[in-house]
Amino acid sequence: MSIGMCRWAIAEGYIPGQSSDDEDRRFVSHEAACMLNASDCDAKVRIMLYFEDRDPVGPYHVVVPARRSLHMRFNDLTDPAPVPRDTDYSSVFESDVPIVVQHTRLDSRKDALALLSTIAFGENA
Amino acid sequence: MSIGMCRWAIAEGYIPGQSSDDEDRRFVSHEAACMLNASDCDAKVRIMLYFEDRDPVGPYHVVVPARRSLHMRFNDLTDPAPVPRDTDYSSVFESDVPIVVQHTRLDSRKDALALLSTIAFGENA
Amino acid sequence: MSIGMCRWAIAEGYIPGQSSDDEDRRFVSHEAACMLNASDCDAKVRIMLYFEDRDPVGPYHVVVPARRSLHMRFNDLTDPAPVPRDTDYSSVFESDVPIVVQHTRLDSRKDALALLSTIAFGENA
Amino acid sequence: MSIGMCRWAIAEGYIPGQSSDDEDRRFVSHEAACMLNASDCDAKVRIMLYFEDRDPVGPYHVVVPARRSLHMRFNDLTDPAPVPRDTDYSSVFESDVPIVVQHTRLDSRKDALALLSTIAFGENA
Repeated sequence: MSIGMCRWAIAEGYIPGQSSDDEDRRFVSHEAACMLNASDCDAKVRIMLYFEDRDPVGPYHVVVPARRSLHMRFNDLTDPAPVPRDTDYSSVFESDVPIVVQHTRLDSRKDALALLSTIAFGENA
Repeated sequence: MSIGMCRWAIAEGYIPGQSSDDEDRRFVSHEAACMLNASDCDAKVRIMLYFEDRDPVGPYHVVVPARRSLHMRFNDLTDPAPVPRDTDYSSVFESDVPIVVQHTRLDSRKDALALLSTIAFGENA
Repeated sequence: MSIGMCRWAIAEGYIPGQSSDDEDRRFVSHEAACMLNASDCDAKVRIMLYFEDRDPVGPYHVVVPARRSLHMRFNDLTDPAPVPRDTDYSSVFESDVPIVVQHTRLDSRKDALALLSTIAFGENA
Repeated sequence: MSIGMCRWAIAEGYIPGQSSDDEDRRFVSHEAACMLNASDCDAKVRIMLYFEDRDPVGPYHVVVPARRSLHMRFNDLTDPAPVPRDTDYSSVFESDVPIVVQHTRLDSRKDALALLSTIAFGENA
C-alpha cells in the first residue's frame, strides 16, 4: 500500500524568530513538513529551500522509514545550513517513493497560539 | 450523486494533551476528520494510523451513512487502541464509495483558540 | 477566461453559536464559502447541506455574476432553511460554469480570533 | 527543474483594515500570495483581482526570478490601484512558467494573531 506523490512544494515558509516560551519545545514557534510514507520501502527525501534574494540552499537529506510518519521541523535542519529565522522561503521535496506532505506553522510570538496548515502541492515527475 | 475519492491521507496529526476547558466538549483540544458521503450508499471506511517510532495501528472501522456528514474526532477512537496525546501521527482512509475528507484541529492549550484545517490528500485506487 | 471546476465539496462545517461581539458583523463567528467566477457568464450555483443525523437540506440557490467574487456566509442562508448553529455539517456546490470555492471560518467565541481556510475539493461532473 | 502550474486562483481575499501594531511590518494585518518559481527562467506573473460589486482590477505585473521565492503582500500592490481594505475580493494568477502559489493571511485586529493558509487552486491553461 502506498499513497501520495513523489514531488511536493510548499510556497509559504517563515519561521518566526520569537516565541512566548523558548524552553518548552511544544510552544516554540516553528514550521513543520509532516511527511507520511505508507509504503513498504523507506523514502529517501531530498529537500531544497528557495529564498527571495539568494541562491537555493540544499539539498537536505531526510529518510522517512517504511510505514512511518515524520513531522520534520524546519527549525531543526542544520546540514548544509540552518534555516534563517524571520525570513521568507519556499521548499521543494523529491522522494523516491510516493509520500504525502502537509505544511504546518505554530506561531507563538504572542501568548495566544496561531496555527496554519495545508496539504502541500504534489505532482509526479 | 456522489463526489470525492476513495483514498485519503492526512500527513499532519497531533492531539494536544491539554485544554483550557476539559469539561466543555466544544473547547477540548481535538483533531477531527470531517467526512462527507454524498452518495446513496453507506461508506465503510477503514482508517490506519502511522507513527514516527512504532508500527501502524488499525484498522479502525467507521461507517458514514448515505447522504450524511460525519465529523469524527480522533480523540474518540478506541478500537483497536486510543490515539496517544502529544504524539505525532498521520492517517490514511480507505472507503468503498467516494467521500471527501477534511482535517481540522482545535488547540485550546492557551485560553485563546487556535484552528487549522485543510482538505486532505485524495486519490483513487 | 474562466478557471475552476463545476462541483465542489467542503467536508468541514460548523458555525459557532457564540461571538465575542454580536453587533459588529466583522467579528461575528461565521463560515463563508468564497466563490470566484472569472468567466463571462453568470454562475448559477446550487448548494446542498449534509448533516450527521438528518436528511440533506437544499438546494439553496446563489448566483455569482460574471467576473465577480462572492463571499457567501452560511450564516445568511435562509431558504429553504437557516443553517443550525453549533451543528456539524458538510456542503456540496454545483455550478453551471467553472468556479473556484474556498472555505473559511472565523471563530470569535473567545476574545482572540481563530481562523481556518482551505481551497475546497473540486471535481468536474 | 520546475514544479507547479501556470494558472492559480485564490477565492478568499480580505485585508483587515486594522492592526494591533501598525508600526511593525511583521504584525500588520496582511494577506500574501507566496509564489515559488523553481524553474531556471524568470516567471512573469499577471494578477487580476475580482470584487463583489465592481469590475475586475488589473492586471498587476510581478516577476518571480528563476529559482526564487516571492512572498507578495496584497497590501503592497499599487499599480493600477491599491487593494481596498475591509473588502471581499478574489485573485487569479497567470504565469508564463510553472509556479506554486499559496495564500496566507495574518489578522492582528486583536492582540492575539490569527493565521490562515492554503495552497491555491492550480490548473494548466
